[in-house]
Amino acid sequence: MKDISAADLENNIPLVARRHEGHATTVRVGPAEFGGSGIVVIAGPCAVENEELMLDIARAVKRAGAHMLRGGAFKPLTFPYRRGSMMELGMPGLALLQQAGKETGLPVVTEVMDVRAVGAVAEHADMLQIGARNMSNFPLLIEVAKAGKPILLKRHFGASLRDWLGAAEYLYYHGNTQVVLCERGVVAPHTHEVTSRFIVDLQVVPAVREYSHLPVIVDPSHSTFKRKYVAPIARGAIAVGADGIIIDVHREPEKAAVDPLQALDYEAFGALMGEMRAIAAVVGRTA
Amino acid sequence: MKDISAADLENNIPLVARRHEGHATTVRVGPAEFGGSGIVVIAGPCAVENEELMLDIARAVKRAGAHMLRGGAFKPLTFPYRRGSMMELGMPGLALLQQAGKETGLPVVTEVMDVRAVGAVAEHADMLQIGARNMSNFPLLIEVAKAGKPILLKRHFGASLRDWLGAAEYLYYHGNTQVVLCERGVVAPHTHEVTSRFIVDLQVVPAVREYSHLPVIVDPSHSTFKRKYVAPIARGAIAVGADGIIIDVHREPEKAAVDPLQALDYEAFGALMGEMRAIAAVVGRTA
Amino acid sequence: MKDISAADLENNIPLVARRHEGHATTVRVGPAEFGGSGIVVIAGPCAVENEELMLDIARAVKRAGAHMLRGGAFKPLTFPYRRGSMMELGMPGLALLQQAGKETGLPVVTEVMDVRAVGAVAEHADMLQIGARNMSNFPLLIEVAKAGKPILLKRHFGASLRDWLGAAEYLYYHGNTQVVLCERGVVAPHTHEVTSRFIVDLQVVPAVREYSHLPVIVDPSHSTFKRKYVAPIARGAIAVGADGIIIDVHREPEKAAVDPLQALDYEAFGALMGEMRAIAAVVGRTA
Amino acid sequence: MKDISAADLENNIPLVARRHEGHATTVRVGPAEFGGSGIVVIAGPCAVENEELMLDIARAVKRAGAHMLRGGAFKPLTFPYRRGSMMELGMPGLALLQQAGKETGLPVVTEVMDVRAVGAVAEHADMLQIGARNMSNFPLLIEVAKAGKPILLKRHFGASLRDWLGAAEYLYYHGNTQVVLCERGVVAPHTHEVTSRFIVDLQVVPAVREYSHLPVIVDPSHSTFKRKYVAPIARGAIAVGADGIIIDVHREPEKAAVDPLQALDYEAFGALMGEMRAIAAVVGRTA
Repeated sequence: MKDISAADLENNIPLVARRHEGHATTVRVGPAEFGGSGIVVIAGPCAVENEELMLDIARAVKRAGAHMLRGGAFKPLTFPYRRGSMMELGMPGLALLQQAGKETGLPVVTEVMDVRAVGAVAEHADMLQIGARNMSNFPLLIEVAKAGKPILLKRHFGASLRDWLGAAEYLYYHGNTQVVLCERGVVAPHTHEVTSRFIVDLQVVPAVREYSHLPVIVDPSHSTFKRKYVAPIARGAIAVGADGIIIDVHREPEKAAVDPLQALDYEAFGALMGEMRAIAAVVGRTA
Repeated sequence: MKDISAADLENNIPLVARRHEGHATTVRVGPAEFGGSGIVVIAGPCAVENEELMLDIARAVKRAGAHMLRGGAFKPLTFPYRRGSMMELGMPGLALLQQAGKETGLPVVTEVMDVRAVGAVAEHADMLQIGARNMSNFPLLIEVAKAGKPILLKRHFGASLRDWLGAAEYLYYHGNTQVVLCERGVVAPHTHEVTSRFIVDLQVVPAVREYSHLPVIVDPSHSTFKRKYVAPIARGAIAVGADGIIIDVHREPEKAAVDPLQALDYEAFGALMGEMRAIAAVVGRTA
Repeated sequence: MKDISAADLENNIPLVARRHEGHATTVRVGPAEFGGSGIVVIAGPCAVENEELMLDIARAVKRAGAHMLRGGAFKPLTFPYRRGSMMELGMPGLALLQQAGKETGLPVVTEVMDVRAVGAVAEHADMLQIGARNMSNFPLLIEVAKAGKPILLKRHFGASLRDWLGAAEYLYYHGNTQVVLCERGVVAPHTHEVTSRFIVDLQVVPAVREYSHLPVIVDPSHSTFKRKYVAPIARGAIAVGADGIIIDVHREPEKAAVDPLQALDYEAFGALMGEMRAIAAVVGRTA
Repeated sequence: MKDISAADLENNIPLVARRHEGHATTVRVGPAEFGGSGIVVIAGPCAVENEELMLDIARAVKRAGAHMLRGGAFKPLTFPYRRGSMMELGMPGLALLQQAGKETGLPVVTEVMDVRAVGAVAEHADMLQIGARNMSNFPLLIEVAKAGKPILLKRHFGASLRDWLGAAEYLYYHGNTQVVLCERGVVAPHTHEVTSRFIVDLQVVPAVREYSHLPVIVDPSHSTFKRKYVAPIARGAIAVGADGIIIDVHREPEKAAVDPLQALDYEAFGALMGEMRAIAAVVGRTA
């Protein structure tokens, strides 16, 4: 783990920059270790929907070998309409996520969007996620840094690697060195018409390795938006050397409250876990 | 001015969408009117530096014919280092901006970045700016909407037109219909090596006209980053039909505390005002 | 006009690069002069369709004040299907274009796509166009350079400024210094869903001025694909300092054989000519 | 193998589109089969330099398990300067490539850029490559299609999937169904400053599977430009389901005549072959 020295600050050297070969930071969240010998698989529903379903999904991903549980209680939507299936549960949803985590022994990660809610969310989560849209919301970065929990920092879909590392630098500068980066797709002109809006930038994984000592994982669900592409990109992420993935899993994906086109069902996730374990072994990792 | 009807909400029709030809919204900030018969020119320093300089710049842009005054007291920077010239003045800077506005009779606009500071900033400004990086910071959008002041909503450099109108919809949905859009450049792959990182999307001006009834202006300074390009793009903005521009002007641009490569000096700004007036007349506007 | 010196080649200094302030190249095509005191307007149908229509359009654009005539006889299409309205006339179409040019006194420009057809096309045209898709078709560049006619070099929609100047350098290196650049829109991720696939990069016009001495014009038709945007972007092009435009004009645009959504009718073109003349005057040019 | 039917042409259904689940085309080049049960690895120098080196590299990649040999005799360069190390050998280089292929039993693939050279190049190569810059050079596509040899069609770095499949359609339409697609990186705004100009679009591999029945491989060398990224992206390509890769290998990469930053040496290539074989097995392929 990297400590911030006065000299670093004095010299204005980015704290997240790699200084010498071989230096790499690991981040622990309960039994899960990002950047260590194994890959970390975070799985769960895009949004927490109800107690029974949350627990069922948690047990299923645990059984398949996931190391952490994901679930959203606050969801950023492009338009402000949240009727019917788009409702978010808010704090009660967080309690359900936390409970499912406890029952299965899986640490939980969830997104926090509002600087005023950081304290409350931090009480229910083992790791706090900064969503892509908030990557350069500097007051939020500072408040989350101070909460003292490990942080999952998603890359904005319009951000360069430098922008992204700059956001991580805010977290380090404000005293939090438990930072894991997460690639989730970038806007690109080449995918329109017949594929999704984003393309996942797997090349950024070795680029992060070259320029920074931070662990980096990939989100194959939100970067592709399409179930057919999720497993291939998840396998690709492990093959290029990512430290893990975060993936949408649902009991009945097509009925998911949010983003029903991208979640994997239990069987598909189980099969993918097997493939990822095998690929991890090829690149010298365990899973 | 558009009113929000229960039926609109019920029907989930975007409030910011254009429904019928000819419908256009105007937004007033003191004597300035966005979307009316004249174009609106907002000018001033990127960052407020000190009282004497702020007032000198305010007088100069007023003399040249600007309609509003800009000035930043809170500046989002990619990395968290603000030593020396990068210091921001914060609330005392806002007081200086407000004072310069009063002395010259120019309404002032300034950026607010922190949801907790909206109330305080709103007391010193006639119009609140949502910066590009915060375009999808939904809690901030809601709080700024509730402050009741006119809003300048910048487009994120990675945002589609739909994303941008979605952010405007949050403002309308939360009761604020005094919304002005501002294009400030988008990331593009074609500009690397010999030009800046962004390209200004002047085509989005007629696209906004087609899909929305909101006024739209252009920021030729932050979209180009280069003094040589500022006047051409400002002229181009008026020629494609923008409702105005927001532009960096400084007494000694090369000594500006922030972004010294892009501000115009008084003489260049005065010449540009003349050109913009003449082009506005060609497209049936006054200035 | 720039001459190629042995020293330039020896020193590997790009021949198209601007060396000293104030140096600018002009290119003459009959009475039209690119890069001179006036702007050059090239207008005509996307594709040559028949003798009567070609002549009617030529007379109309001449009447409105256009300086050159455009018309395609060979059209690159994404898919190889050219049935019905997508038929291209080929060499007989070129003869019709040439004839319409002679009757109206307008020099003609047309695209050549095949290295084996350069000689034949050059006999019928006053200026040869290299299309965007062929910008880096180096054998074609060399053959067109050797034909000795002035050249209109369109920018590929995926090309950086450096790529584009590299293509122009091929033309200079092979002995042809009568080169005019043409911006026609670049791929960008920000326009999907509600606007076209490309955005026109008007910022590249001052960038070309900074890095090169070559004249540069803009194609507002193929960069926007949408009639509503054509006049605004044409005005914007003149306002940012372009040396001219090339624009699709048709007697009945909605019946045009190719790209019926983008051509202007005679009345709209006439109105635009007036606006462009007025804006040209603002930036110190005539039209 | 797909046959072109009159009905297909009549109905204007793209010949390269996937019609029903499970349909996939295989392309044979000597013993190598693209789209079959195994992956195909094409390796060799970026440019043919001399007889001894060409043969040495051919033997090394054969030993390591490559299935085909690559080597360029005609190289498209952004600027027309080819002094010293940038010289290309042209036809004599092709003879050296062909000879190295014969001595090692590896089929060879090489790029053809000039429509007038297709016949001559086809005599020396087992597969003809259409380079990215020529993807929409339609006369070249037609001539290469008619040469009757299998074709490797690279994606232009500014091309959408639809553009790319449109180019493949030209080959099919003109009677050649032995077409293999090759992803080689697309322009993207997110990589500037600290990484390369392109990002490889591995997501396009499952997208090609969804929309087309053609085999698709990946070029990890030209898409990354950086040795450090080549092996990760090659592994990622196999993991997402690519039918193979084409990769630069050189005895002394840092002394390579063209693109010295990206080639792998023999040892690194051998290690990568082992990793790719293991990952291919995970996704049900052999290597």
